[in-house]
Formats: sequence, C-alpha cells, structure tokens
Amino acid sequence: MSRFANAFGPHRPEATYVAHAFPEQTLDTGEVSMNYAVAGSPDKPALLLIPGQSESWWGYEQAMPLLAEHFQAFAVDLRGQGRSTRTPRRYTLDNMGNDLVRFVDGAIGRPAIVSGLSSGGVLAAWLSAYAKPGQVRGAHYEDPPLFASEVNPACGPSLRQSVGSMFALWSKYLGDQWSIGDWEGMVAAAPRELPAWLAALLSAMAGPEPAQNLKEYDPEWARAFWSGTVAASCDHASLLTSVKVPVLLTHHFRRVDEATGQLLGALSDVQAARVCALLASAGCDVDYQSFPTMGHSMHGQDPRLFADTLARWAATLPKPL
Amino acid sequence: MSRFANAFGPHRPEATYVAHAFPEQTLDTGEVSMNYAVAGSPDKPALLLIPGQSESWWGYEQAMPLLAEHFQAFAVDLRGQGRSTRTPRRYTLDNMGNDLVRFVDGAIGRPAIVSGLSSGGVLAAWLSAYAKPGQVRGAHYEDPPLFASEVNPACGPSLRQSVGSMFALWSKYLGDQWSIGDWEGMVAAAPRELPAWLAALLSAMAGPEPAQNLKEYDPEWARAFWSGTVAASCDHASLLTSVKVPVLLTHHFRRVDEATGQLLGALSDVQAARVCALLASAGCDVDYQSFPTMGHSMHGQDPRLFADTLARWAATLPKPL
Repeated sequence: MSRFANAFGPHRPEATYVAHAFPEQTLDTGEVSMNYAVAGSPDKPALLLIPGQSESWWGYEQAMPLLAEHFQAFAVDLRGQGRSTRTPRRYTLDNMGNDLVRFVDGAIGRPAIVSGLSSGGVLAAWLSAYAKPGQVRGAHYEDPPLFASEVNPACGPSLRQSVGSMFALWSKYLGDQWSIGDWEGMVAAAPRELPAWLAALLSAMAGPEPAQNLKEYDPEWARAFWSGTVAASCDHASLLTSVKVPVLLTHHFRRVDEATGQLLGALSDVQAARVCALLASAGCDVDYQSFPTMGHSMHGQDPRLFADTLARWAATLPKPL
Repeated sequence: MSRFANAFGPHRPEATYVAHAFPEQTLDTGEVSMNYAVAGSPDKPALLLIPGQSESWWGYEQAMPLLAEHFQAFAVDLRGQGRSTRTPRRYTLDNMGNDLVRFVDGAIGRPAIVSGLSSGGVLAAWLSAYAKPGQVRGAHYEDPPLFASEVNPACGPSLRQSVGSMFALWSKYLGDQWSIGDWEGMVAAAPRELPAWLAALLSAMAGPEPAQNLKEYDPEWARAFWSGTVAASCDHASLLTSVKVPVLLTHHFRRVDEATGQLLGALSDVQAARVCALLASAGCDVDYQSFPTMGHSMHGQDPRLFADTLARWAATLPKPL
C-alpha cells in the first residue's frame, strides 16, 4: 500500500487540515455538509467566493480582509474540497451548482454577487445561468476554463489539449478519495506522462509530501474532469446562452503553443471571444478584462488588484430589488 | 419530413395541450418554467405528486379530488413533460430532483410528503435522499424502476432487460423534442424492434396519431434513459443508502420471463427486496406493500385505492416541527 493511501480527507481531520485566520462553520445542504468562512459585515453587498480545482476556501484568505472593505464575503469549500463532504461518483457541475443555490438560500439569505476561479469560475457561470430567480446579482468569472475544461468543446482547445493530462495523472496515482495515495509514484511518473510545461508545473509542487491544498482535495474531481462526467449534462455553450445577469470575465496568462496546439492557460483568446459573443447574444452585459501577465489566480497572486477590480465592477451592478 | 416532425411541445401549445378540470399555473425555477396544478386546502398536509415517464400532471386528475380529502396536493410537470420547459441534454435525475427542491421551496413553502410513479418514484427516492433538510416528511415510491431503469444496475434486470427497447424505439423514431416525429415509422417498426410483450403494449397506443400523453412528452427523456445519461451521476444503490425519511414502497405487477430473463414490470422481487434492505441499512422505516395484480399506475387505475393507501400511510408519519 502506498504511503499516503486513504491518508487525507474529512475522515482524517488531524492529518488533513490546518488552522486559519477566519472561523469556519458548516451548512447542511441535505446531501453535503458545506464548510465556509465569512469576512465583512452584513450591511455590505453579499459576495460568494468559489475556489478553483485543488483549492479550498482559504485560497481567498489573503484577499478576504481587502474584500471585507466592500463586501460581506462568503468563501466555501465545494463538495470534495477542504472540509466539505466527499460525494463519490456525484461530482458534476449541476450538483455543485445546486449546492451553491442551497448555500445562497441557507447561509447568505439575500441576493449575492458571485466570483469563482477556474472550475469555480465555470460554477459562477453556472449560477449566472441556472440559479433561482433573483439569487445572483452578477457573476465574475476569474480565468475560467470555459470550453477548455470540456472533453468535446464547441470551441477551441479541449481539456486534453490543455491541463487534462495533469488531471489524468492525479486521478491515476492518487485515486478517488486518496484511495491510492502513491505520491512518490506520481512525482516519478510526471516527466513521462505529462507534457514538459505541465511536468514543470508539477515539479514545483513535488515535495516529500503533498502540498496542503492537495491534501484537502478529492482526486475524484480530476477523474470527473478527465473523463468528462463533470460536464456531461452541462454543455458550456448551452450554459452561456442561458446567462441572465451581468458578467465580469477576467482573462489571465494564456498562450497556444504553435508546435503542439496545446493551450498553456485556462482559456484561449478564441474561447474568451466566443464566451463574450454567446453572453452578448443572451443579452448580458459583459465586462471583459485581459490580464495577460497575471497567473491563474489573481486573488492569490495579487489580492489587492483582485479586490479593487471586483469592487469597481460590482459598483456598476443594479441594486437588488 | 415526417408528418409529426416538431409538431408537439410548448412551442406548439394549440397542437399539444387540452383543457383540464384544475387550473394550471407555473413556477419559474430559474432554468425551468414548471407547470403544476393544486387540489385541496392549505390546512391539510402538503403532498407533491411526481408523474412517471410519458405522463403529465393530469395523470393524477382522477385521483386529485380523492387526495384532496386528506392533502393539499401539488401535481407537477417535470422538465420535458406537459407544459414545462424542454431542456435539451440536461435530463438527469439530479437536475429533475433539484427542480423539485426549488418547487417545494417556491410553490409549496412547507414540508411535504412526496409520491411519484415510475421514474417519478425514482425522483421521490432522490428527494428522500438529497432534498434540503426538513423539506420531505416521507416518500411514497409508486412502482419505481429502482435498479431496473439503470443501464448497469447493482442488482437485478437492467433497463435493456426490461422496457429499454421501448425507449430506444421512441428516441429513434420520434427524436429529441419531436424533431423526427415519424409516428407511422415507429408503429411499423415496433414488431421488428421490440420484444413481443412490449410490441403488444405499444400496439395498444398505436392510433393514427400519438396519444395525448405522448404529445406532451419530450422523447429526449427516452434517449436519456436508454443511453444511461439520466442516472450517470446518480447510482441507485448509493442513493438508497442516503435516504433519510420514512418510505412507502408499493410494488405492482411484475414477472420475470423464464425463457429470456426479461422483466415484465417496473422492478423485480429481488430488486424490491434489495431496495428495502438498503433503506433499512440506512435506518429508514420502510412500509413495503405488494399489489401483484395492479397495473403500473395505481393512481390511474384505482384512484380510490391509491388515495386510501397513501392517506393511511401518511397518517403514521411524524408531524413536521
């Protein structure tokens, strides 16, 4: 058995979690015990923060005091992240999105602005299309892999042509719910099984034991993306034509490698343009902002710029009724 | 082009719908305009009625006055049924179940007893496992194809070994959203493409034009079941181990053909026993009642027995807090 087999997850809290600067609490959604933290006072506009894949709520920890100047910010762990429940074979955008619908009802209790990074940005898009009427005032998609996290996208590079092989590697060596936990095997396999740019990315996190964020991550997420099940009933193009609220799309570093067609980044320029076109066709106001030298997580890399960008856009939104 | 291509659905209301004895109204869930009818007064316990596949809310029309003696009964059209919205490529148990979660919140507004027939019975099971805390007081599964509507069930005959080829036929000749509409071709193909018992069932509905209930049905439902996408993220065995409320399971006519192993009926005896065992292992009170000479829809065939059976069981449920 591998050294880290079944080592991490809510059943092994001492081995998995660390302390944080904000108190954590949970909401029972019915299926999931959803962990979250709050910053800011309730007289400010409500903001729901949705972490990316292999991130937990505390990916926003540095940004939250800055956001609290403008918002009451709720940062969550999605199912399969952080301290929230693992739900084997039930990791879909629709299920995660509906968890957030219940969270807005049960924990926030008023219309909210939503902002999500990466896969969380796709979920911000989901909420902007499919939440209950009046729940979402506006949605910030932070460097979201729209189209690029699908196995058969309507536009541009697919998951396999971007970060997919990283998810395949995680899934294979770590296993659903860390059932395999072969960290050393994964690190050793990376140069063989990943393209050079992803191998370099992985070697940056390849210490003797998994980084804190990966301990808190259910690797079944990776399988759900690599296999396509996560979005099987939620085509991104259809989703974007159903969006009903104003959108801020921030687009960070990206490059399409000319030799291989591989996308280095979350979504290509042609995909971002297609997102904007579909949103416009749905009648949505879209604010597209390009940050071509910014890493994937602006809220992690430059929390001040993130808070300012979000607050400036949020100030343009219609007030809730 | 076939005679009934694109002939039916919410975009062609005059061609599709007929008048009913109860007024109809809609709830906007965010993604779906959900059509429903109500009978009974609000001082009685709330009851949510979930029709089966190829049924609409008015499948309960005869039962509703009898149910109104005991309940305030809400009968709905699910997405892809009756007057509710069609949602191409988004017909999953999880999405339909979450529509009902929003319906309980938005239209019923208090804890409800749920009763569903057939696929609606599987959704009653879904709600008994995955609804918000406190939404569901108890669940009646009326002849539900638990396991038997899965393509790869944990127990007993699969969809292909029961009614699956009927769904394959509907999907092929009628098409998603009635896009093909080749009714004559379907009727002609039935003896070739269906086992004898299903061909006999189909010939009973094979008039010169589709029966009223089929006009109101999106044949993409059939494709979602035949392909397995409807339950791809919702394994029935896992679902049953998550049920949290008392259950009434009524089991109607069934027979396993000895020559072919085909299941004639909604679920076999071994499947019903497995349902009860999993519910018991989850700590649920299960009332199993066998009606071996009853057709698939007791509420259609014997509304009085249906209302009495449901009311008698409902009287045993704990009162809501």
